[in-house]
Amino acid sequence: MSNSLGVGIAGLGTVGGGFLKQLKSFKAKSNSESNIKIVQIAVKNKRKKRNFSIRSLPLISNAMELASNEEIDIIIELIGGSSGIAYKLVKKALSNKKHVITANKALIATHGNELATIAEKNKVCLNYEAAIAGGVPIVKAVRENLRFNKISKIYGILNGTCNYILTKMSRDKRDFKDVLKDAQNKGFAELDPTFDIQGIDAGHKISILSSLAFNIKVDFKGTYIEGISKIDASDFIFAKELGYSIKLLAIAAINGSQVEQRVHPCFVKQDSDISKVDNELNAIVVNDNVIGSNIFEGPGAGAGPTGASVMSDLMDILRGTYILPLGSSIDKKKKSKIKKITEQKFPYYLRILAKDQSGVMASITKVLSSYKVSIESIIQKPSHKKSYAEIILIIHRIKESTLLLALKKIKGLKTVSSSVKLIRIEDSL
Amino acid sequence: MSNSLGVGIAGLGTVGGGFLKQLKSFKAKSNSESNIKIVQIAVKNKRKKRNFSIRSLPLISNAMELASNEEIDIIIELIGGSSGIAYKLVKKALSNKKHVITANKALIATHGNELATIAEKNKVCLNYEAAIAGGVPIVKAVRENLRFNKISKIYGILNGTCNYILTKMSRDKRDFKDVLKDAQNKGFAELDPTFDIQGIDAGHKISILSSLAFNIKVDFKGTYIEGISKIDASDFIFAKELGYSIKLLAIAAINGSQVEQRVHPCFVKQDSDISKVDNELNAIVVNDNVIGSNIFEGPGAGAGPTGASVMSDLMDILRGTYILPLGSSIDKKKKSKIKKITEQKFPYYLRILAKDQSGVMASITKVLSSYKVSIESIIQKPSHKKSYAEIILIIHRIKESTLLLALKKIKGLKTVSSSVKLIRIEDSL
Repeated sequence: MSNSLGVGIAGLGTVGGGFLKQLKSFKAKSNSESNIKIVQIAVKNKRKKRNFSIRSLPLISNAMELASNEEIDIIIELIGGSSGIAYKLVKKALSNKKHVITANKALIATHGNELATIAEKNKVCLNYEAAIAGGVPIVKAVRENLRFNKISKIYGILNGTCNYILTKMSRDKRDFKDVLKDAQNKGFAELDPTFDIQGIDAGHKISILSSLAFNIKVDFKGTYIEGISKIDASDFIFAKELGYSIKLLAIAAINGSQVEQRVHPCFVKQDSDISKVDNELNAIVVNDNVIGSNIFEGPGAGAGPTGASVMSDLMDILRGTYILPLGSSIDKKKKSKIKKITEQKFPYYLRILAKDQSGVMASITKVLSSYKVSIESIIQKPSHKKSYAEIILIIHRIKESTLLLALKKIKGLKTVSSSVKLIRIEDSL
Repeated sequence: MSNSLGVGIAGLGTVGGGFLKQLKSFKAKSNSESNIKIVQIAVKNKRKKRNFSIRSLPLISNAMELASNEEIDIIIELIGGSSGIAYKLVKKALSNKKHVITANKALIATHGNELATIAEKNKVCLNYEAAIAGGVPIVKAVRENLRFNKISKIYGILNGTCNYILTKMSRDKRDFKDVLKDAQNKGFAELDPTFDIQGIDAGHKISILSSLAFNIKVDFKGTYIEGISKIDASDFIFAKELGYSIKLLAIAAINGSQVEQRVHPCFVKQDSDISKVDNELNAIVVNDNVIGSNIFEGPGAGAGPTGASVMSDLMDILRGTYILPLGSSIDKKKKSKIKKITEQKFPYYLRILAKDQSGVMASITKVLSSYKVSIESIIQKPSHKKSYAEIILIIHRIKESTLLLALKKIKGLKTVSSSVKLIRIEDSL
């Protein structure tokens, strides 16, 4: 255990504030295990209003200074963003043999392989517990324990904003835009929520978990990503009627050497564990061939949870624990062989808007049958749109590319509106 | 990372078999991170039938030999039992500066403070992930991360056998003895299930978690323990009617400097997370003032899960990770100030068998009122016992010692049978 370590912090927003509060309470305890000295804190705007006092803090404006300050052993990067200053700072810090702690999933998802290589070469830590699922210690669990158990699938709810919105939509039967506005007013969604609602944030996280779980390089670009903005209140009503909930899931799975990495809205059975995870909570399920299934659930964001995870990363460094950034050595990690979403097979929920006239159903089912798409159940309801009907189909497992061909034909039918909605059913949870 | 480490194993039952299988699959991978050599394996009976081949294994009969074998760096103790050979072996091994991994909760609960002191002095590891909740990495999470967050309460379902029995009783409305027999036939309960059904096993586990969470010495003797054998099928029927499930919970909580450590059957609200954990599953909830709440759920027993946890402990040692056995230094741990169960306050479920005649209810409620015990709800049902009635009361929160005085009076009433059943309600989950 080292006795005094210099820490530099870049960025002092929600996570930074949470971490400083944690550190203070930790230092106040008589049983503090080490001396931690905050050497410098880089902030963009020294005059910005914060909900904690910054008077006695050693503020500077240029984050890059941290990387060359010899008093600093550990840099905590809380700026965010996949490139720009965060990337430059972390790369420089690792090159200068400083340990790095970050909450930046975009950075690890985008540059994780390169940064891990530098960290590994220089034998310094690159820890990022706060980057995935806030206060849930999932990085630690997978990176240090569970990856030895031949993980077959790791999946979950990794974006609290989306889960909050979907929960509200489901309970109040309100539409997406309406609930999003509400969430923004209440501070549960960012003013620019693009990364969250488009699934990109969850995509970053699952790409990292996939690398840890399957001993492959991080491959964010290979991750199929679809957001939640096209779901409307009626989809929740139909889902419920059919025994399902709708969740935005992030899923990584391996089959032989082929890896699936995907984020998209899913129909999940109402009695599945994941269906019961509501509001802003996060949950991750790890399936392996030794333990079976481990479930982790907790808050995915907020000053407390993320600050606590940064603190935990710091404690590991203070104790001298060295874990390779991506679990195993980057040299021994294979390049992922991603299975395209169109090559995968799912059961599906389809929602087709069609003219309310005789023969429509027959023409649709005829097309489906010609592509060997088999139907499990059908609901037909009058549409809000006059003289149209909503046709809801649950389709048995079929290759997505085949279904897409059939849907193209269906969209071409004169009686069918061009909007056909498709939501994958995740039935093996 | 060390390059070759000698391992000695004591005991080759379920956990040992699971671990060897894990180790084999780990070694078979090209990316093995270290050379592990199994130097000796001590077994009581070399001729015992096992479901794996022992032909090529270096078996010996005297476990104590491991502690003095100079080729052995790490001893994995899988014999079990709080004293006897397991205790002697682990103590000797730590004294001889060998790392120890154990799955033995009874040992750590009983001798944890002494063993931690030796390990700490000699700077060797004493790891026991498999001792609590099988394949769920809860020791790692609490010992390395969560204990920095001022944990206020840690609780859960820590005995899979009891949870399996309670689940079956609840679903099939069958009585305890009947279900236990069934569980034994199916291998879900030991032939001697005393430690499980009396709550002792869960008591061992929660005593250890309490020490990790609250920075106190392990105090198994201070843990209040009550088993599940007195619960019958009718209790489940009444519970359901009142909106509750019945679970055997292990609970540790801190309030100021006072600690609660208790294991007993609890009424828990049907919609609480813990109520949904069924069959042989384990679950642990950690409440703290920083993150809020973290939930861990997974299989609590079996060759795979426990073997995987032993493997994970071994990996930590191979990587050179050194965590103090009880999280923080034993010298800095306070002695626990245990709050007696009779000094604690709970809401209660009471079940009173009374003669089915007028005035009974009045006499019972009169006694309760004289002790300021206030009633939330009452159900009266005819009993199986002729001319008797079952009176079910839900009692508002009150100090247990006060309730016990009132119940003594009630048992003394001529119209009341001497058996009055009491189950605590855990309402703040």
